Amino acid sequence: MFLYTKNFNEQKARAMEGLRQALAEGKVDEDIIPLLEKINSLDNYFTTSSCSGRISVMEMPHFGDKVNSIWLGKWHREVSLEEVLEAIRRHEKGQLWFLVRSPILHVSAKAMDNAVRLLNLAIGLGFKYSNIKSVSHKKLLVEIRSTERMDIPLGSDGKLWVSEEYIERTVAIANSQVRRFKGKLKRLEEEIEKLKD
Amino acid sequence: MFLYTKNFNEQKARAMEGLRQALAEGKVDEDIIPLLEKINSLDNYFTTSSCSGRISVMEMPHFGDKVNSIWLGKWHREVSLEEVLEAIRRHEKGQLWFLVRSPILHVSAKAMDNAVRLLNLAIGLGFKYSNIKSVSHKKLLVEIRSTERMDIPLGSDGKLWVSEEYIERTVAIANSQVRRFKGKLKRLEEEIEKLKD
Repeated sequence: MFLYTKNFNEQKARAMEGLRQALAEGKVDEDIIPLLEKINSLDNYFTTSSCSGRISVMEMPHFGDKVNSIWLGKWHREVSLEEVLEAIRRHEKGQLWFLVRSPILHVSAKAMDNAVRLLNLAIGLGFKYSNIKSVSHKKLLVEIRSTERMDIPLGSDGKLWVSEEYIERTVAIANSQVRRFKGKLKRLEEEIEKLKD
Repeated sequence: MFLYTKNFNEQKARAMEGLRQALAEGKVDEDIIPLLEKINSLDNYFTTSSCSGRISVMEMPHFGDKVNSIWLGKWHREVSLEEVLEAIRRHEKGQLWFLVRSPILHVSAKAMDNAVRLLNLAIGLGFKYSNIKSVSHKKLLVEIRSTERMDIPLGSDGKLWVSEEYIERTVAIANSQVRRFKGKLKRLEEEIEKLKD
């Protein structure tokens, strides 16, 4: 069975090169960079992808069709009502959705016991949807994920189904979810060094 | 490391006794029973909990406070607008939410390779959020889960923030999500016997 990832160090070297490029191009969410650096400083782990959590306004042909979806607005922080309304005004066709997504980190672990230690740490810090996402010779991937989420249909084909007041209330709830998951990320950053051998 | 679940057969016997009781008390979602029976007929697996997916109307003090939440309506099938409105009329205080949740099955596996085979089958059949939820001497748990979901705030403290027309549109989208995940459950039921040794 797949207790160890093959060629872990070579894989980590390649992933770190990719991360350096992504950082240079400004493609990494800024507030998650210190956490990524701490994880990558540990011998038995490396990060393969990450999102620090987000609020977005999205236009999609139908629910779940990610390929043909367009972000009209996307923020990795709290937002103002005006920013959201501005994004909504760009809506033309398809379904219009307001979305909140929790932070998500994919971390490759060297061996199953490393994966389990990280999994249990993350769950203990409030990342309750954390799990082991894939297990194979090629990778042993831990997903760190929290419960905050909203999926709200707002309208379709240029027509809005809700009032501005509704959007204001929704933005307030979304911002409280952002504050909550940013706090969890901070705690994870503080505690991750416990995994040092 | 935790390659095998200790006392798997004793654990399975206890779980099957619990399942028999739950079935006798009508506590298991009916349309998922044939799938549970097929999984439990396999030597290396047993189910520990399940939900066939649901639409619900929920009242909660604040988002995420499950303990103090009350279901005003809950359906493991498509719903009519009238059923949802009736549930909404029972709302009195706290936040009012309209929720859709994908099916979720927790399956205990005898060994890590059994867990991985089930995980990969489920992901291949569209249960894309499937994962290995916990790994320990005591249990090796696969979670089978799909992507369909809605979390929509509808109002608070007895006041509704949206129109009846909005709820009608939302119910239509929720019903299409239900059709989609019921189809996935059906395919899983058809394919699960591939895991027979």
